[in-house]
Amino acid sequence: MNIAVAQSGGPTCAINASLLGVFKQALKTPEIDAVFGSINGIEGIINDKLVDLKLIIKNTDDMELLKQTPSTVLGSCRYKLPEPNSNDEVYDIILNCFEKHRIQAFFYIGGNDSMDTVAKLSAFFKSRNKDIKVIGIPKTIDNDLPETDHTPGFGSAAKYVAATVQEIIRDSSVYSNDSVTIVEIMGRHAGWLTASTCVLRANDELAPHLIYLPECEFSAEKFIEDVRIQQAKHKAVIVAISEGVEIPDADGSYQSGAVDVFGHKYLSGIGKVLENLVRDKIGCKVRSIELNVMQRCSSHISSKTDLDEAELIGAKGVEAALQGKSGETMVFKRILDKPYVITVDSADATLIANHEKFFPKEWINAECNNVSDKAVDYFLPLIQGEVNIAMKNGMPVHFKI
Amino acid sequence: MNIAVAQSGGPTCAINASLLGVFKQALKTPEIDAVFGSINGIEGIINDKLVDLKLIIKNTDDMELLKQTPSTVLGSCRYKLPEPNSNDEVYDIILNCFEKHRIQAFFYIGGNDSMDTVAKLSAFFKSRNKDIKVIGIPKTIDNDLPETDHTPGFGSAAKYVAATVQEIIRDSSVYSNDSVTIVEIMGRHAGWLTASTCVLRANDELAPHLIYLPECEFSAEKFIEDVRIQQAKHKAVIVAISEGVEIPDADGSYQSGAVDVFGHKYLSGIGKVLENLVRDKIGCKVRSIELNVMQRCSSHISSKTDLDEAELIGAKGVEAALQGKSGETMVFKRILDKPYVITVDSADATLIANHEKFFPKEWINAECNNVSDKAVDYFLPLIQGEVNIAMKNGMPVHFKI
Repeated sequence: MNIAVAQSGGPTCAINASLLGVFKQALKTPEIDAVFGSINGIEGIINDKLVDLKLIIKNTDDMELLKQTPSTVLGSCRYKLPEPNSNDEVYDIILNCFEKHRIQAFFYIGGNDSMDTVAKLSAFFKSRNKDIKVIGIPKTIDNDLPETDHTPGFGSAAKYVAATVQEIIRDSSVYSNDSVTIVEIMGRHAGWLTASTCVLRANDELAPHLIYLPECEFSAEKFIEDVRIQQAKHKAVIVAISEGVEIPDADGSYQSGAVDVFGHKYLSGIGKVLENLVRDKIGCKVRSIELNVMQRCSSHISSKTDLDEAELIGAKGVEAALQGKSGETMVFKRILDKPYVITVDSADATLIANHEKFFPKEWINAECNNVSDKAVDYFLPLIQGEVNIAMKNGMPVHFKI
Repeated sequence: MNIAVAQSGGPTCAINASLLGVFKQALKTPEIDAVFGSINGIEGIINDKLVDLKLIIKNTDDMELLKQTPSTVLGSCRYKLPEPNSNDEVYDIILNCFEKHRIQAFFYIGGNDSMDTVAKLSAFFKSRNKDIKVIGIPKTIDNDLPETDHTPGFGSAAKYVAATVQEIIRDSSVYSNDSVTIVEIMGRHAGWLTASTCVLRANDELAPHLIYLPECEFSAEKFIEDVRIQQAKHKAVIVAISEGVEIPDADGSYQSGAVDVFGHKYLSGIGKVLENLVRDKIGCKVRSIELNVMQRCSSHISSKTDLDEAELIGAKGVEAALQGKSGETMVFKRILDKPYVITVDSADATLIANHEKFFPKEWINAECNNVSDKAVDYFLPLIQGEVNIAMKNGMPVHFKI
């Protein structure tokens, strides 16, 4: 039998590690012949753009480089399959591609949108009595997938964010006058990555002094009050805020969205809005910083735990398909925080597709401006370990097709 | 004799390494007794806020940590001394502090503003026939100081920028549709740090495809034309632009500066302005990224060459003072690119104070949208070598007072 693997959704530092996991496990499995990589996610299957991964990943050096290269070496897509009843044409195209290349198992590395593809494709193949297994391998820096303790890619993002916020703390503390520094962190509607800045407590940092997550209602007035209280204690106040925090309509005048000189309204991030608010209401030195895509691609400071787990869960996906599973997404179950122990299991992909898992309310303080030490225990194991990054000319080396 | 050292201006990854260089050289010098650290630059001298560095940097572990900690462990300031004739009061306060603590040499680590302090203080002491030496130790990520081949702090910033832009290249190349990614890079009026992204050529990267520096006149129309030409060749076009690039008045409608919902005009960076321009004129997927303060504080990916040189130039500063020099700034002279050889010398601080050194016009292409391979040869040695960063709980450890 042959198998195919594809990568989908937004980049992370660990997606290529999961690809490697699938590939290496396939090499170890006598039943598997060719391992095809589909270019640009499911679009590669639809357009019959497949590559033979054995011709691309040729030796252990390639494997090591692939594992530490950020983003998706096979490209990605944001393609959403239609409902199976409404339009079967694309499903037939996919089936033709699979049959033409004798592909009997398909591994889709992605987030909750991609798990929708896993669920639909698996259901379609079953409805046609085709023995093609479809397995989802989770990934997202947002950590917002249900059923799994955490998602591959999140640990590396959290490690980058922690290291960077710590450096921003040093940077912002140099002058003798008061300042406020607002760091805007990714995560869509879930506060996991922003909350993960609490790990800095383990290294005796008091900052971030304020942490705001989309799981709580936000009030601009309360925010200014919170900042003032922190300013009484700290010269340089550090705020971590999730990109998903919305200012309620009642505070309409503080709405995000600036107007550029062309008169176009554009969505300015929440960080910039709060920066202007602090300047307006408090008047001290203030700066907002967007960690932007660096959060999802800074592989030079990846978490070794994250990359190793991403590889493992890819390998386990191949095992699951060989055991006859389909329409399942691989998940982590946490057995223990200290010492950190996880196992890999699988769950029905429909439980993950299009669903979001939010940061637990019980780990947020009553003031809704910080998180508890329970969160530190949860996050810390995920950022442990450093990857021995290959360097050339003073820069990391990336694997490229 | 006692000596004092202070740190001034914007943070870099290498200022603490220069502090360490001064401190270690002082320990080796029998004539020197106490080594005072002045808190918040020259303000610490004025306010008599000094610390005994021997009580703070206690062993080799402290030294190693100090060297790899970003920003300024003694704090910083933006204080500018008045002209010596207009107001001698503050000079007398400084003199009193020096005499009270028997300080006979002062080392000021900073940029071109700080070298103004070095020149003025030195002239003042000479005018009063006081035997107090004042030596400048250069630092700035902008690399814009005259008389020196390059500045400590620049190499680490360039290494961070190169690694990060390479990761952004991977991140931006995942989808099958066209995109433009604009990376805004620091450097004030000088294009050095933006130009340094050309080092990626050494690792076979074609991007950034366009590099814009403040040393050239910028035209919004030409920019859009340049992007279109690159789009014919590359799906994901990467642009590096210096924060100092200004859109000329003739293109008034493209001026930076957005209006927020309060109606306040605020300076939006050039990256955001060009992002809106591309969206407006080309209409493809476009993103702008500000590397922000991470450029100057990301010590987790410091250049070993940079930190070692920063330590060396601090030590050489102490030697220069002992040799009787004053009113001088320490500088690097480059002997050779390959193999890279430098020596340390000194230059009259007035030649550096308040002056800027710009990126050489002869290294900019005729189109004013890229730089030549001569620049690669200049930049590459500065980013070589990795620092063995001390980690705890998965995060770098910083030295704190």
